[in-house]
Amino acid sequence: MHPKVLSAVAVDVKRTELWEIEMPEIPPDAGLLKLEAAGVCGSDWPAYLQKASGPRILGHENVGTIARIGAVAQKRWGVKEGDRVALEEYLPCGHCATCRTGEFRLCDATDPWMGGIRYGSTPVTVPPSLWGGYSQYQYLHPNSVLHRVPDHVPAVEAALALPLGNGIEWVSTEAGVGVGKTVVIQGPGQQGLGCVLAAKAAGAAYVIVSGLSADHKRLELARRLGAGYTVDVQREDLRSRVTEITGKKMADVVIDVSSGGPATVTSAVELLRKRGVLILAGKKRQAIPEFDSDRLIQRCVTLKGVRGHSYASVERALELIASGNHPLSEMCTHQYSLREVDDALKTTGGAGSPGAIHVTVLPWR
Amino acid sequence: MHPKVLSAVAVDVKRTELWEIEMPEIPPDAGLLKLEAAGVCGSDWPAYLQKASGPRILGHENVGTIARIGAVAQKRWGVKEGDRVALEEYLPCGHCATCRTGEFRLCDATDPWMGGIRYGSTPVTVPPSLWGGYSQYQYLHPNSVLHRVPDHVPAVEAALALPLGNGIEWVSTEAGVGVGKTVVIQGPGQQGLGCVLAAKAAGAAYVIVSGLSADHKRLELARRLGAGYTVDVQREDLRSRVTEITGKKMADVVIDVSSGGPATVTSAVELLRKRGVLILAGKKRQAIPEFDSDRLIQRCVTLKGVRGHSYASVERALELIASGNHPLSEMCTHQYSLREVDDALKTTGGAGSPGAIHVTVLPWR
Amino acid sequence: MHPKVLSAVAVDVKRTELWEIEMPEIPPDAGLLKLEAAGVCGSDWPAYLQKASGPRILGHENVGTIARIGAVAQKRWGVKEGDRVALEEYLPCGHCATCRTGEFRLCDATDPWMGGIRYGSTPVTVPPSLWGGYSQYQYLHPNSVLHRVPDHVPAVEAALALPLGNGIEWVSTEAGVGVGKTVVIQGPGQQGLGCVLAAKAAGAAYVIVSGLSADHKRLELARRLGAGYTVDVQREDLRSRVTEITGKKMADVVIDVSSGGPATVTSAVELLRKRGVLILAGKKRQAIPEFDSDRLIQRCVTLKGVRGHSYASVERALELIASGNHPLSEMCTHQYSLREVDDALKTTGGAGSPGAIHVTVLPWR
Amino acid sequence: MHPKVLSAVAVDVKRTELWEIEMPEIPPDAGLLKLEAAGVCGSDWPAYLQKASGPRILGHENVGTIARIGAVAQKRWGVKEGDRVALEEYLPCGHCATCRTGEFRLCDATDPWMGGIRYGSTPVTVPPSLWGGYSQYQYLHPNSVLHRVPDHVPAVEAALALPLGNGIEWVSTEAGVGVGKTVVIQGPGQQGLGCVLAAKAAGAAYVIVSGLSADHKRLELARRLGAGYTVDVQREDLRSRVTEITGKKMADVVIDVSSGGPATVTSAVELLRKRGVLILAGKKRQAIPEFDSDRLIQRCVTLKGVRGHSYASVERALELIASGNHPLSEMCTHQYSLREVDDALKTTGGAGSPGAIHVTVLPWR
Repeated sequence: MHPKVLSAVAVDVKRTELWEIEMPEIPPDAGLLKLEAAGVCGSDWPAYLQKASGPRILGHENVGTIARIGAVAQKRWGVKEGDRVALEEYLPCGHCATCRTGEFRLCDATDPWMGGIRYGSTPVTVPPSLWGGYSQYQYLHPNSVLHRVPDHVPAVEAALALPLGNGIEWVSTEAGVGVGKTVVIQGPGQQGLGCVLAAKAAGAAYVIVSGLSADHKRLELARRLGAGYTVDVQREDLRSRVTEITGKKMADVVIDVSSGGPATVTSAVELLRKRGVLILAGKKRQAIPEFDSDRLIQRCVTLKGVRGHSYASVERALELIASGNHPLSEMCTHQYSLREVDDALKTTGGAGSPGAIHVTVLPWR
Repeated sequence: MHPKVLSAVAVDVKRTELWEIEMPEIPPDAGLLKLEAAGVCGSDWPAYLQKASGPRILGHENVGTIARIGAVAQKRWGVKEGDRVALEEYLPCGHCATCRTGEFRLCDATDPWMGGIRYGSTPVTVPPSLWGGYSQYQYLHPNSVLHRVPDHVPAVEAALALPLGNGIEWVSTEAGVGVGKTVVIQGPGQQGLGCVLAAKAAGAAYVIVSGLSADHKRLELARRLGAGYTVDVQREDLRSRVTEITGKKMADVVIDVSSGGPATVTSAVELLRKRGVLILAGKKRQAIPEFDSDRLIQRCVTLKGVRGHSYASVERALELIASGNHPLSEMCTHQYSLREVDDALKTTGGAGSPGAIHVTVLPWR
Repeated sequence: MHPKVLSAVAVDVKRTELWEIEMPEIPPDAGLLKLEAAGVCGSDWPAYLQKASGPRILGHENVGTIARIGAVAQKRWGVKEGDRVALEEYLPCGHCATCRTGEFRLCDATDPWMGGIRYGSTPVTVPPSLWGGYSQYQYLHPNSVLHRVPDHVPAVEAALALPLGNGIEWVSTEAGVGVGKTVVIQGPGQQGLGCVLAAKAAGAAYVIVSGLSADHKRLELARRLGAGYTVDVQREDLRSRVTEITGKKMADVVIDVSSGGPATVTSAVELLRKRGVLILAGKKRQAIPEFDSDRLIQRCVTLKGVRGHSYASVERALELIASGNHPLSEMCTHQYSLREVDDALKTTGGAGSPGAIHVTVLPWR
Repeated sequence: MHPKVLSAVAVDVKRTELWEIEMPEIPPDAGLLKLEAAGVCGSDWPAYLQKASGPRILGHENVGTIARIGAVAQKRWGVKEGDRVALEEYLPCGHCATCRTGEFRLCDATDPWMGGIRYGSTPVTVPPSLWGGYSQYQYLHPNSVLHRVPDHVPAVEAALALPLGNGIEWVSTEAGVGVGKTVVIQGPGQQGLGCVLAAKAAGAAYVIVSGLSADHKRLELARRLGAGYTVDVQREDLRSRVTEITGKKMADVVIDVSSGGPATVTSAVELLRKRGVLILAGKKRQAIPEFDSDRLIQRCVTLKGVRGHSYASVERALELIASGNHPLSEMCTHQYSLREVDDALKTTGGAGSPGAIHVTVLPWR
């Protein structure tokens, strides 16, 4: 094993450096992951633009093989050296009421803003430094949440486990989409396309995806992934289209994963039928200037703020990926080496190479 | 039977006249209710202040005995002349997809804004005129939804069936409150107090009710109905109090039935724990100026706009009333005769006699 | 319109006669259906073998066009003469607590054993006699539950609305099957194959269908409808196969629609993982000799007895049929004229032409 | 601290000896509990009658204070030396799919029959021996599930946390009992009485408890805990009584916690209304000779085998106990010292002192 680990460290706003970090000691209840691929999440872009509390290795959609594992961890996790796994970003405590009721992603220990640690967020000043995926190796903390990945799955597709897990969580578990439902998905990025797959898998009758003119390639892919209809909101009125497509029945569910501005929240309410559900997953980073809560009452509409995925949804995601039944390779648009992590981030943020959907860092390339 | 029916007709904004209306013919699938009591709903006050499409008999929390019934209706409804019933305000079609799935209160036929008819809303110009409860008799349309009322229940308490049914619907069915939950109820009016009873009945561990200084009598009654804590928001900070009472765990559920202004919606979100549910039942009649939808995402909070009650909730409400286990008579603060309907409405709206919680019109007084 | 209606009347055990029945008067709240197709349900076979309380027209999976409709019914049902509809077998009262909560198929009025009337069961001695589908016309009682059928759907496929509606009800609504689940379906008849379609539509990962050697054609069709695996229980051990296919995870859900004998209930429990659900839909007509209820406790297993379909499930079924995405025509194996109703029944019961899955009577052939 | 721990070890069928066991070393991720009280579960009686795989310390309803705790455990569990806790019997792995979805009580690691360890079951040959509650000290394994117990709660009442947690789990979570429901509880032992409390807490309108003539003291206590009706099945016909009490509506839910024989399962089905739920929690240790599964179909009845409690239900139970609102001390009928563990077990099993409901061993008495 290499005595030093090569890692791409975000040292400042929009600046990444290659560092050599000491290979850590592995205690009996921990392990070490040799990365194969680390997906670039949409949230990595704002993280990259922000002044952080210290240098850190970004990257939390991580897939690799177990390079080392302590005896206790091996027994607890049920994996051994050489096994292939996908990691969740969360490091839940496992003992609080939240963890005990299966909602571990909401455990305070997973929340960097409450002093918790999280893959892809925690600075290198916290030992043993290797907290992110844009690196040859990642430390496997005792609280890691792992999923087995079959050998035949390409690494770049396995790195979709978390965004696709989000789609399944939001569409099936949170919104309750099932056979015959009508779903509108606002925003055709990696999360939105994950929702398209999830909605089709769950039996939705109508899947309608909206985006901007600049999204036309993404909208095309949405159709190949199963969306029956796509709407360019700069050329067509979304409400009129949904009215027409559904024969005035409107949508059972709207998933808002767009990040443009708050207007999509207000307009989404009008796409819903009575008793409809609006899933809010895309942060706006600004307040809605005029929000009519009475409209929710008149139409008995539910708004649900959601975040991340459950264990079961990531398992489901990996099964869908492993089935080979979906053109997921088309979502994997760009791959970069460790030296090119700045490019990977810029491409994801729309400030680099065009046409990005899901970008991956391949640390050993 | 009297050849003419005495009814209090709202002829213009804040003006009610006593009219004599022709006793209607009763077709085989319809009936006639002799009113005992008609509760004044909080929504009657804005209705009273609004220019309507025509003169109408207000009053939709109606209790009485079957005075006449057609042979078809008798078989369908399972009641006969002399039986005592409480009426729902809705007249659902019974045949659309909404009715067929038990959600009849959302049937388009129940919606006056879509050309539907509804007790307490439909003008006297629609034959046979007797559509409201502030009247000696009310026409029982073939689509009526009736509930049996035991003989021993005082009429003024039976007239609480709908507001208390709302409480049960919102607290149990919509918010899922069960044993050990913490519930904050914003607004101690008749709807809010109905929610207090419903929350206690469902096993909530902490029931906290907030109101204004002017509500101090209502807050006292809230405590007698089972609220463990009441908070005068003009003297205490609600968030601090909820933090303190719950040991920082915050609320599982907030029910907002206040009608003051939009501020309660924004502040309610901050009373909730992660995964909390905010039930919106009080209309604001104005937009929220700065609504932070990202806050819902951060805390995984659900906002649910709700309206009215299901059949089952009204049945549950009548059982609670009939049990005699709750000091419901204290909610019944004012009773008026048909000649005093203007006073009844003003008292409900806070522009008449003080101390109103639930006001009733007794048409035969 | 014809002054007389030609109907196939089951006059005795295994004996059907063609009768000419008086065309009924149609009251304002009723109608008349001109039949296009009447599916033969599996339950028609035991009905055909039983001594009934009087002669009756069997057939309750009925599709046709509205031949006549009263003014009241036209408004209530939202259909007019010439419209194409599928009928449910139930005639619910619409006013009891069961109907008001969306569970109308359990309304006492739908239950012939409680004096209710039902299409395909009620004797011709109850006026106006035309209660079944093996007839040129069927009376549309005021309590009829209708579904619109698009013009492009072949009548024999539309006649699958009820069995496929059952599949959706049992698989999705009752068993909660969703994305990634493993479902075993015992019995590859029309109900079982409806469950296959429903399970695939709901996103089940593994659909395993078991049957006898004589069912090999049905098992083949099960695979074409989406089942990944079929098991001939006379040649293979079902439990071993499920263990192997699922990698020892076993099934989330077993649907038992077989009618052979009680053994399938006991064995089904052993196919389930902890917390699994066994849906009982196939009647055994005999008791289970040794039933180990402790086994349900050890494995936290749920047994659910189910019957029929909700309104929503039949709507979903008609959408799936209308989509044209499934090889449903292959389920439609046999069609008979009114004169051949005895053959239709025998073929369904396995006592006539071989290879039957769904048999239809075409009354105007 | 004492160098030796005094423990009551079940060495053979119906034979307990006092042993002095070595005080264990406590690793950083473990702890040691000084017991205050150990409840005797109904299941301890059959365990006591059975030939086991080795000597073991029974007792798994354990309450005490943290005597020692490792640094890692202190941080993970959020407790420190001197804190008062109640323990669950389960030692879940925390990492498998079952644990990750909140169902840790079904984790294979909790199952002694699959090689797992469990408090009150694991033999003393497994180091460090102190696996049960009938002992001065109990080892706190790293996988322990703890609940905080307020100081003011008497230890014998705190020892009700698990049986009452079962009641809440079965009545609320499994059966969905809420406001206005009718619940029949078959068997007035500690589990049944826990169900009575849970049903009242959840707002059940009718709580009916059945038992034998010998149970008359227990039935009396059931009434004091909130049951409206009790039925001695040796003097009255339970079905007739339920019919009468409910005005023929029958029960929404039956909880069968009786252990007599299989007859209660068959008869329970007949107490249910359509769509009713039968919770099976009492093991019969023999098969039901004639079980009519068709009856479940006719009445759309659900049978649910259940076992144990979730984390949340035990928290709810401790809140109910701490509230002081219920006459729980009356359930605490007998207390024994370590020297009297044989008596404690015999009293629980009905072979010792009469009138037992909940028996507790007080190890320091």
